[in-house]
Amino acid sequence: MASGHEHTVKAFDQDISQLRALISQMGGLAEQAIYDAMKALQRGDEALARTVRKKDKQIDAMEAELEKLVVRVIALRAPMADDLREVIAALKIAAVIERIGDYAKNIAKRVPMIHAEGEERIEAVSILPAMGQLAADMVRNALDAFSARDAKAAAEVHASDTALDDFYDSIFRTLVTFMVENPRTISQVAHLLFVAKNLERIGDHATNVAEMVYFAATGHYLAEAEAGESSGS
Amino acid sequence: MASGHEHTVKAFDQDISQLRALISQMGGLAEQAIYDAMKALQRGDEALARTVRKKDKQIDAMEAELEKLVVRVIALRAPMADDLREVIAALKIAAVIERIGDYAKNIAKRVPMIHAEGEERIEAVSILPAMGQLAADMVRNALDAFSARDAKAAAEVHASDTALDDFYDSIFRTLVTFMVENPRTISQVAHLLFVAKNLERIGDHATNVAEMVYFAATGHYLAEAEAGESSGS
Repeated sequence: MASGHEHTVKAFDQDISQLRALISQMGGLAEQAIYDAMKALQRGDEALARTVRKKDKQIDAMEAELEKLVVRVIALRAPMADDLREVIAALKIAAVIERIGDYAKNIAKRVPMIHAEGEERIEAVSILPAMGQLAADMVRNALDAFSARDAKAAAEVHASDTALDDFYDSIFRTLVTFMVENPRTISQVAHLLFVAKNLERIGDHATNVAEMVYFAATGHYLAEAEAGESSGS
Repeated sequence: MASGHEHTVKAFDQDISQLRALISQMGGLAEQAIYDAMKALQRGDEALARTVRKKDKQIDAMEAELEKLVVRVIALRAPMADDLREVIAALKIAAVIERIGDYAKNIAKRVPMIHAEGEERIEAVSILPAMGQLAADMVRNALDAFSARDAKAAAEVHASDTALDDFYDSIFRTLVTFMVENPRTISQVAHLLFVAKNLERIGDHATNVAEMVYFAATGHYLAEAEAGESSGS
């Protein structure tokens, strides 16, 4: 009996490793998608933007794969308590990464509209990549914290969301001012507002992952502050 | 043995009913949040906007409750195959409703910024409630389709997403034109752009629910068309 139980435990550990490996892979793709989308935006590189959109299907397919794996693991291993919660957490984190991929894809979709032929160059574009970098870093750090079950690293991701929100507020004001001064660019700059908003949302999602990691590791919630909320602008 | 099995089946059916009742309640709250947020926006009613923000915590709490129930159901009943998939679907749909609630809350948060003191009245505000109505209808219809496991109704929700996307594109152009003609309103109208985008995203989420319902009922995917994507503007 004992060896039978051990066998199940080992099989379950392998399942969990497989779930974590899938999440890590998905996270890597999502992070790359953010970088590439911002690069495409900065350079007006429509081919790269198309690649980002195509690759998003890979992330979606991996989420579907992970979901099937979760159903199989639960059905075969009947995990209890903490183990079951860990499996459910994997499902939730995969859903968050899928959504981050969608935001990157959405940024990529706006590249042709921001760089429309004959339109003037928007200097404001140049301030966005730094925000993209910060958002991508948060995603990587949140997933690293997940891999390492590191509550301290998770708390740091949570803290950096405030910086990203401030960044967003500043960019929002910059873009609005730019529109006021250059009314002919309003349509293009409106797309940049959405790009900034997407980056801010990516940060919120990374923060949600960090909160899950922190709670799983400590049993406590990370601050009462509503980190998942944008600052409103 | 047979009666023991029957007992488990009956208990599981009760669990599923409870999950569905929770989802139905959450959906009702989310739908109401959309209506109230749009009413607050139209009237500049900041007290109502605050109520929408407060009530969102109720939706969040219900999602957490549902998640606990799901973990309990899986641990106690060890559901197999279709039953397990139904439990997982409930978890996913609850997450979608929670997100819809967030979008409504986000609209409510913009009310004070759109109706800032001394700012001029934006006529464009008056075209948004019709879009809000369409989005809220999609949410209700998607959840009704879920309750009734009605594939046909789910397909109709999926089809109406195109109308909502068209609505969004039209409002986007209207708002941009308005900004060009009234540069002093740009900051306020930028918030309206986000409101329109939030409504469009609510429709995407309702469509995702409809797709899950359709797949659960028929075993087929609803169209290859990327209904979950916005039109890009």
